Amino acid sequence: MKIVNSIEEVRSNIRQARAEGKTVGFVPTMGFLHEGHISLVNRSKSETSYQVMSIFVNRLQFNDLKDFTSYPKDMERDADMAKNAGVDLLFVPDENEMYNNNLTSVNVERLTDHLCGAHRPGHFQGVFTVVSKLFNIIQPDVAVFGQKDIQQAVSIEKMVDDLNFPVRIIIAPIMREVDGLAMSSRNKHLDAANRQNALVISKSLRKAEQMLIAGETHAGSVISAMKDVILGGNPASIDYISVVRYSDLSPVDTVTQKAVIAVAAFFGTTRLIDNMIVNLDKGSVECIY
Amino acid sequence: MKIVNSIEEVRSNIRQARAEGKTVGFVPTMGFLHEGHISLVNRSKSETSYQVMSIFVNRLQFNDLKDFTSYPKDMERDADMAKNAGVDLLFVPDENEMYNNNLTSVNVERLTDHLCGAHRPGHFQGVFTVVSKLFNIIQPDVAVFGQKDIQQAVSIEKMVDDLNFPVRIIIAPIMREVDGLAMSSRNKHLDAANRQNALVISKSLRKAEQMLIAGETHAGSVISAMKDVILGGNPASIDYISVVRYSDLSPVDTVTQKAVIAVAAFFGTTRLIDNMIVNLDKGSVECIY
Repeated sequence: MKIVNSIEEVRSNIRQARAEGKTVGFVPTMGFLHEGHISLVNRSKSETSYQVMSIFVNRLQFNDLKDFTSYPKDMERDADMAKNAGVDLLFVPDENEMYNNNLTSVNVERLTDHLCGAHRPGHFQGVFTVVSKLFNIIQPDVAVFGQKDIQQAVSIEKMVDDLNFPVRIIIAPIMREVDGLAMSSRNKHLDAANRQNALVISKSLRKAEQMLIAGETHAGSVISAMKDVILGGNPASIDYISVVRYSDLSPVDTVTQKAVIAVAAFFGTTRLIDNMIVNLDKGSVECIY
Repeated sequence: MKIVNSIEEVRSNIRQARAEGKTVGFVPTMGFLHEGHISLVNRSKSETSYQVMSIFVNRLQFNDLKDFTSYPKDMERDADMAKNAGVDLLFVPDENEMYNNNLTSVNVERLTDHLCGAHRPGHFQGVFTVVSKLFNIIQPDVAVFGQKDIQQAVSIEKMVDDLNFPVRIIIAPIMREVDGLAMSSRNKHLDAANRQNALVISKSLRKAEQMLIAGETHAGSVISAMKDVILGGNPASIDYISVVRYSDLSPVDTVTQKAVIAVAAFFGTTRLIDNMIVNLDKGSVECIY
């Protein structure tokens, strides 16, 4: 695995890989890798022959500068994990390499109005801008995003479609601990009691799945039942429980065709998110979570 | 010359050209071609071996829907001119091919605050969005824009730099009638008297050049002298006479290093624009107009 810091080195390495007939897969990250990130690389390996990962903590997507400066870093461990996962090229630019008096931004309307976007002004614009840059730098055939950040993944699908980026987006499933908790670097902040309490989040999604299978399509009823499950875990607060259309992530009253059911809640001071994608087709129910 | 309407056909034709070892030059237009457009193709031909032109009247960049629907069209003449100019691939998409429930936009701050941008909210965002799409569809090595629309050209340079588009932008000089009037499809709206009057615009730029050569660097003095020249042509009104920094197109009090001097004025009901790029370097003065 090569580790490079400059855009020029990325381009020359990828030019070389392309000259060897390789296809390029890309997994963008902010580092502090866990098994979730590695699962994205594995998915990319199943589709392409040359793996690029970026590690860049993107200032533009932080609402609070303190969160940006305190974002956890462990470059040595990250490099080991990336290498072991089969990454060929690890791109670790510094701030100056990525932003030199940047005045350009990319935005996707509507899809960022609800869910996490409602309380994070500017966050997704920062994500779209850096992802556009990375796509233009790497020019991958395939880029893999995690379903865990469903609003990010679906909005990027829309951005790619709207702006005709020549890249295929894959949304890879959520990696979970054996007891069902979605993997996150934040989980380590949970004390023992809240680690146990937090299981109600994935349980609430299973509850929603059961209701959909039983024929319930009223979003309000599903949300109400999920709320009861989550309150059983004594959350510090529930940020949102939402049923949205997949295509534009806007809230729906009735679950039809493709939808997303998403949850965000605090356990202690730790904010956890989880979601499932729902496909309703001629009475059959498929839930991906 | 091939004429194609779909993104897929563009991509397959360009893939073929690339397989033949060709380099791709691109000139985006809204059609109704004149010699100015052809000069952009000629410049592109001097840099690359396969020429792509697009003709697409981009609804997103019109503030007034009436201007959009009444935008002049002459597809048959355009196709002849493009063919004679040596265009290899003419891309003429319809509205649905380009915009399918589009929610994504690209914006460049600051550079669009002054000059034409001041009175055309949303115009440049529409330009950046469609140009981003066209760059992603065509993936050219080189794209050529005219200096005539200097704010567009400089902002797109900045967008390409900020978002790392793998394309080299060339700004080609303004084509002029023998008497100095900048070529524009709007010139045909001028009656005989205003056609003559309008010469004061290019004269005002020459006046500015003379002053710079004589050592004048105070923007206010240059603007004041240009205003006197333009008023001599009885304009219906002067929209702006501005001296701006090239790098961010913001107004300056003193001309230093690289600057743009730009004019917009109405003759009758026809709005005309013109400009020159100024390079001041160790006392030498270069004016490109």
